Amino acid sequence: MALRAAGRQSLVDTVVDALRSQLTAGEWTVGSRIPTEHALAEQLQVGRNTVREAIRVLVHAGMLRTRQGEGTFVVSTADPGDIMRGVQRAGIRDVLELRIALEAEAARLAALRHRPADLARMRAALDAQAELADAEGAPDSGSLELYADHDIAFHKAVVEAAHNTALTATYGWFSSSVREALVSALDDHAMPKIVHGDHRAVLDAIAAGDPEAAERATRELLEKPKRAVEALLAAR
Amino acid sequence: MALRAAGRQSLVDTVVDALRSQLTAGEWTVGSRIPTEHALAEQLQVGRNTVREAIRVLVHAGMLRTRQGEGTFVVSTADPGDIMRGVQRAGIRDVLELRIALEAEAARLAALRHRPADLARMRAALDAQAELADAEGAPDSGSLELYADHDIAFHKAVVEAAHNTALTATYGWFSSSVREALVSALDDHAMPKIVHGDHRAVLDAIAAGDPEAAERATRELLEKPKRAVEALLAAR
Repeated sequence: MALRAAGRQSLVDTVVDALRSQLTAGEWTVGSRIPTEHALAEQLQVGRNTVREAIRVLVHAGMLRTRQGEGTFVVSTADPGDIMRGVQRAGIRDVLELRIALEAEAARLAALRHRPADLARMRAALDAQAELADAEGAPDSGSLELYADHDIAFHKAVVEAAHNTALTATYGWFSSSVREALVSALDDHAMPKIVHGDHRAVLDAIAAGDPEAAERATRELLEKPKRAVEALLAAR
Repeated sequence: MALRAAGRQSLVDTVVDALRSQLTAGEWTVGSRIPTEHALAEQLQVGRNTVREAIRVLVHAGMLRTRQGEGTFVVSTADPGDIMRGVQRAGIRDVLELRIALEAEAARLAALRHRPADLARMRAALDAQAELADAEGAPDSGSLELYADHDIAFHKAVVEAAHNTALTATYGWFSSSVREALVSALDDHAMPKIVHGDHRAVLDAIAAGDPEAAERATRELLEKPKRAVEALLAAR
């Protein structure tokens, strides 16, 4: 098979696509060593430099790993870039539901595993938020950004209190990449106000060591924006 | 700032790291256009070809997107490769908990949104599994692989019945990349047998349109391997 650059796509991109197809098709399994640069260059009838660049792309994408003197090994047969693009093409409702999935479970686990420092971080975030809010618990327009930062800090502290590396990594990726899409896609005024009491209910249930109550409080907190989004979409 | 290749790392890798640092630090926000190749080459004091290769790496990683004639735009400020590596470094218990988070929520939503074809796929997977099992519901040693395939097909059908693009994308990535790590890390004999009745309970609750029961049945199904893992880890 001799690969050629198609249209505007460079030859490296074409080789990346070819290797990625072999990976996602399961031709090479996780943990196995892929053929040498030399063998791949022969197989695809391209130069070794092109193969080397393509491998670099897939190493940075988290699909391959190169071990000095040993060769190149398969880390994952799924394409993280594809997943990222898939989630970002998803609608707001879908994204909120993914968030509920991650945070509801994190809150359950946080109730069982939190340490004193976790509770202190949650409290500090809520106290800082309270200082920015008026009597009804709504922030004044000048401090919206800061108020949102404390909100993010609270939710992050809940997820980290689960002491689960996989949840923290997935949530961290998710919250940083999707938040801006959410904010820009929504008319803020149509969204329900963040009510401070809701957050305290999550904190109280975690502090009390009650996983069911912690999950329930988290669901109640996040179902509000979800229902607002559904109402917005239905009204269109 | 003049970048230099450090040790075995190539100059392209160094430029990738520099750009990625600017992205993850939030220097360029999602949706914004990053400086031109020319400007970046000047800023980093490297050649334009090096910048072009580094941008290619970040496009494939899902962090940037290039629009013909318009420039290069920020898609995500989180690094999918990093997340992937983070989840893969996580322990088995952590990975099972992430799976519970995604599947329990998917089962809830599937109870509300399933279509006839979704139920048919779940039933087909369980029926095919039943044919491979003996009277106690355990597969014979010759059909373990096939039995596992039907198991995966069932869980995938549940997640897809939630009709949520973000959940499906995240679960798909997760199940393909983490499954093999799970299988290889565990002594199969120490794991609890898959009991067929558990799966039917999930299907029945979804078919009955009962989100609470669907979530509960999914949790019960997945808590078993989680407890087995915890027992194994405690025994070490």
